[in-house]
Amino acid sequence: MQETGRRMELVEELRGVLGGRVTVNETMLEQHSSDESYHSPHLPDVVVFPDNAEEVSDIMKLAARFDVPVVPYGYGSSLEGSVIPYQGGITIDFANMNNILEVRESDFLVRVQPGVTRSQLEKELKKYGLFFTVDPGADATLGGMAATNASGTTSVKYGIMRDQVLDMEVILADGSIIHTGSMAAKSSSGYNLNGLFVGSEGTLGCFTELTLKVIGIPEHIMAARAEFATADDAVDAVIAVMQAGIPVARVELVDEEAIKQMNLYSETNYHEVPTLFLELHGNEAGLQHDVQFMEEIVSDMNCRQIEFETDTAGRNKLWEARHHAAYAFIHNHPGRKQMVTDVCVPISELAGAVKDAREAVEASGLSGGIVGHVGDGNYHILLMLDPSDPAEIEKADQVNERIVGYALGCGGTCTGEHGVGTGKQKYQEQEHGESLRVMRKIKRALDPDDILNPGKIIE
Amino acid sequence: MQETGRRMELVEELRGVLGGRVTVNETMLEQHSSDESYHSPHLPDVVVFPDNAEEVSDIMKLAARFDVPVVPYGYGSSLEGSVIPYQGGITIDFANMNNILEVRESDFLVRVQPGVTRSQLEKELKKYGLFFTVDPGADATLGGMAATNASGTTSVKYGIMRDQVLDMEVILADGSIIHTGSMAAKSSSGYNLNGLFVGSEGTLGCFTELTLKVIGIPEHIMAARAEFATADDAVDAVIAVMQAGIPVARVELVDEEAIKQMNLYSETNYHEVPTLFLELHGNEAGLQHDVQFMEEIVSDMNCRQIEFETDTAGRNKLWEARHHAAYAFIHNHPGRKQMVTDVCVPISELAGAVKDAREAVEASGLSGGIVGHVGDGNYHILLMLDPSDPAEIEKADQVNERIVGYALGCGGTCTGEHGVGTGKQKYQEQEHGESLRVMRKIKRALDPDDILNPGKIIE
Ligand SMILES: Cc1cc2nc3c(=O)[nH]c(=O)nc-3n(C[C@H](O)[C@H](O)[C@H](O)COP(=O)(O)OP(=O)(O)OC[C@H]3O[C@@H](n4cnc5c(N)ncnc54)[C@H](O)[C@@H]3O)c2cc1C
Ligand SMILES: Cc1cc2nc3c(=O)[nH]c(=O)nc-3n(C[C@H](O)[C@H](O)[C@H](O)COP(=O)(O)OP(=O)(O)OC[C@H]3O[C@@H](n4cnc5c(N)ncnc54)[C@H](O)[C@@H]3O)c2cc1C
Repeated sequence: MQETGRRMELVEELRGVLGGRVTVNETMLEQHSSDESYHSPHLPDVVVFPDNAEEVSDIMKLAARFDVPVVPYGYGSSLEGSVIPYQGGITIDFANMNNILEVRESDFLVRVQPGVTRSQLEKELKKYGLFFTVDPGADATLGGMAATNASGTTSVKYGIMRDQVLDMEVILADGSIIHTGSMAAKSSSGYNLNGLFVGSEGTLGCFTELTLKVIGIPEHIMAARAEFATADDAVDAVIAVMQAGIPVARVELVDEEAIKQMNLYSETNYHEVPTLFLELHGNEAGLQHDVQFMEEIVSDMNCRQIEFETDTAGRNKLWEARHHAAYAFIHNHPGRKQMVTDVCVPISELAGAVKDAREAVEASGLSGGIVGHVGDGNYHILLMLDPSDPAEIEKADQVNERIVGYALGCGGTCTGEHGVGTGKQKYQEQEHGESLRVMRKIKRALDPDDILNPGKIIE
Repeated sequence: MQETGRRMELVEELRGVLGGRVTVNETMLEQHSSDESYHSPHLPDVVVFPDNAEEVSDIMKLAARFDVPVVPYGYGSSLEGSVIPYQGGITIDFANMNNILEVRESDFLVRVQPGVTRSQLEKELKKYGLFFTVDPGADATLGGMAATNASGTTSVKYGIMRDQVLDMEVILADGSIIHTGSMAAKSSSGYNLNGLFVGSEGTLGCFTELTLKVIGIPEHIMAARAEFATADDAVDAVIAVMQAGIPVARVELVDEEAIKQMNLYSETNYHEVPTLFLELHGNEAGLQHDVQFMEEIVSDMNCRQIEFETDTAGRNKLWEARHHAAYAFIHNHPGRKQMVTDVCVPISELAGAVKDAREAVEASGLSGGIVGHVGDGNYHILLMLDPSDPAEIEKADQVNERIVGYALGCGGTCTGEHGVGTGKQKYQEQEHGESLRVMRKIKRALDPDDILNPGKIIE
């Protein structure tokens, strides 16, 4: 949006709908100009805070009339630039729509507004003995998590965001309001809109309500840290555990560098060696059996030491430290910005992929740590970059490129959970080939004027 | 296709591509004119048997040139008319494309051609100690199962067809060949085409290859039959079991009428009372605990008797009888055709829904049995109809209408697993409302000339 007069007119119209919940305050615009990664920022023209679906629909209609982009905004924790309004326009911040609308305990369902954060939901569900399984390392919103198809430490057992969404209320580019599913546990009725809208990164519609699966807090939980001499050994152990069919609920790789950052930030004193953070869920008897089997397998794979966290406090500390791993890097590197690779490969290819990635990092001269949801074949290299140094960003880009190349070469994907945004766009052609044309057709059919988060996922 | 000359020309062109694998033989056309339900048949103009993706692509290009419909055909076991070529044209029978291409044991993946049947796959996987979880009651093809988003007795634990598909090779309306996913366990790259094509009933593309998740055969399995005085009690027990969070692998309702048909057909001698068929999977210790807990719960819910099947033979017999339940009705009612309702409701609504359905059947004067994957809230009323008696079909239609109305009224779906075809089309507007417009836009974007299975799902 270039013209000042036209922008003022739009702001006036938005005020007509939202009153004071429209801002062009510079600090506010800046807050909505970036995500938590190295991607360069860009200001929106205006930020709005709707209270309900009807208001979002009105905003969409205004955007269409003024032909300006709309970018939905959750917590801004995404890592590939998905939330950055590179073409300006209206950023819709869902912070006000943060109510947990209904806990349908006996159906294991919860209905939430998109601005509810995962920690807020966790706290509420605890009262019912329930939990929501997807737990990204940031306190993301459920709307943002659905839009990026987020996953987390327990996805290896309970599935990713897409598996949890039964229904969404979505506002389309033309302002119409649809539902993408129902409360039924399964359906073969019509095309699967749930799955299409989940992961669409704000390019197909704004989510104004989500119906999500929840599950009962497991009867028994056992967490452990398994330490290895090398990351290769740790990865081999993960593969062995998965291939043995042990129903792990969590299996996370944290390499020596990441443990070091963790110790600094979370005041843990874990040995600074490649480590697996593991968890098993079940009834007491079954769990004991699984734990024993798992212990045997990791021992066979050169595990040097395994420490069990038997009480809740130790377990919480362990997972809190793991959740804060990425923030630990950020905190310990003031002034630097994060680049996080995010490939996911078939489990049999994981060892080779991680090895090659480590070589790529070493060759680049950058320093980086590895963390990852390795049970799914998904791992991250965390690189801390000086955003004002193009050479460093270029180097990191080359590392990413090699890692992505390896993953695509062995049947994997360039992004296991963070999404495409702008950062992974250049790999879309290589990964999807002809099917990218299908995606473009869908985008064009649903948003012909390219108003919804333009330039993301698909150019 | 009316004009004989034009049809002959098309057949000639098809022969140019497929040689002898093109037929206009009347018996063959008739075999491809119906599914296994009461829906009235219609002949295709020609049936073809491609050997590979390139041939399917060529067929699609010819269909576009001649502007004739294409209907993909698996095993023809679907129940809502999805496979019936009401507008004639080319039926593509995938019987020749029935190879299991690769078992990636260590990745828990299998790559198959679409004509592979579930029993064929089961047999092959057994050699590796693996199994494929989705098990409809017919020996359907994997292509057909993906196209209807089929599910089965174990879906309550392991998910539905859509959850198993990691990638498909698909031939689009214009003959182009795409892949819908990768071999990664999860991905946030691009729009989720896997989920969109699964359940599209041949209206968006022909599947020529599928990459599917498989799992290890469970260490220990325990099956049981729990008998009740009334179907209401049985349903209440299911709800209690699910709400207690017991990780049942199967929980099927079979009412007294269905048991009767089963006993006649499968030579079992189960008590002819409402019964739950149950199964649990796990390690030995965990399983014992779960079984005991489950037994307590069903006892509390007025279970009159519970019989465990401790050996493999007894267990196989039990599940074979259950799998053949629908065929038992067909076999025991020669000359009659089947209508099967297929709603799915939130589990807390199941008792009310089943009760209302039974009342609807009684009021109609028809006789019918109930079977169902009740752990998912999905149940079927099986009605055997005289296809030449419009009054009977009309009555059955009214029963279906009431059952669907109840399900939609409580947040459920008109079809849990059989698909829309033509039979469930009239409920699409009520179930999906505005989102039906989105589905139409997607269909138009991907198949603008309405060549792929026209008139199905969407009018
Ligand atoms: C320290 C750290 C750790 C992380 N760990 C993980 C992890 O373990 N797993 C993981 O998957 N990700 C992880 N992430 C990435 C991030 O947390 C996820 O991508 C998350 O889903 C983003 O949610 P958000 O609310 O911050 O969304 P935002 O960043 O605000 O937005 C993300 C995308 O969603 C769209 N969007 C937001 N709200 C809506 C809505 N209501 N309707 C439609 N579209 C909407 C936006 O337009 C944008 O395209 C991590 C990030 C950080 C900083
Ligand atoms: C006795 C009996 C029991 C049943 N039990 C169950 C059950 O428990 N669960 C369940 O879900 N269903 C059940 N069904 C229904 C049926 O088995 C399923 O719908 C099954 O998925 C159909 O597979 P098929 O190979 O027979 O497909 P078909 O009937 O041949 O085709 C079904 C649909 O798939 C399309 N199609 C087929 N192959 C392809 C391809 N390669 N590419 C694209 N589209 C294709 C067709 O065009 C059509 O729209 C049952 C049916 C019977 C008769």
